[in-house]
Amino acid sequence: MNPEHFQQLDRVIHEKGRLAIMALLAANPQLSFTELRDILNMTDGNLTSHLKTLQYEGYVAITKTFEKNRSLTTYSLTDKGRNAFEKYLNTLEQILKETRRQK
Amino acid sequence: MNPEHFQQLDRVIHEKGRLAIMALLAANPQLSFTELRDILNMTDGNLTSHLKTLQYEGYVAITKTFEKNRSLTTYSLTDKGRNAFEKYLNTLEQILKETRRQK
Repeated sequence: MNPEHFQQLDRVIHEKGRLAIMALLAANPQLSFTELRDILNMTDGNLTSHLKTLQYEGYVAITKTFEKNRSLTTYSLTDKGRNAFEKYLNTLEQILKETRRQK
Repeated sequence: MNPEHFQQLDRVIHEKGRLAIMALLAANPQLSFTELRDILNMTDGNLTSHLKTLQYEGYVAITKTFEKNRSLTTYSLTDKGRNAFEKYLNTLEQILKETRRQK
């Protein structure tokens, strides 16, 4: 077991609410607040807080558009976010492999 | 992607410091405080706090023995801890599979 792999786990992504958001945004080019909230069954407050953290880290971008006089806010992964998520999944895979092997 | 899998991730184990402790104890029948601290490169305070959380949850047992007039404290996984860790790893594996597949 390599203890460094655990330290390499990105804290911003590792929190399970944010991990779910990142996984959803990795699978969809963009999602609205309502879509994210309903799929993940999160409270508005929780989702807002996680999205802020992800935006602050530069992992998630926010886009505001207007359609038929209604504003629509959507969220998507940035390139930085996509790379960080890929790295996170690779680290997780390593940890799983090593932990499974050692038993 | 199944959002429930993220919710199923055991919060006690998911924290990355505790995840590292659980993985180490899954691979070793017992370890002393010093061994855990040195392998994981954690501060005394951090390790103490994580071990307390794991004991409180019933995942880790503490054993005090005496050897040549010196007391030795060791930590090991309980059956409950081993089962919870196995379940955690299975959930993680599911998440990885689904997240990899969807891209």
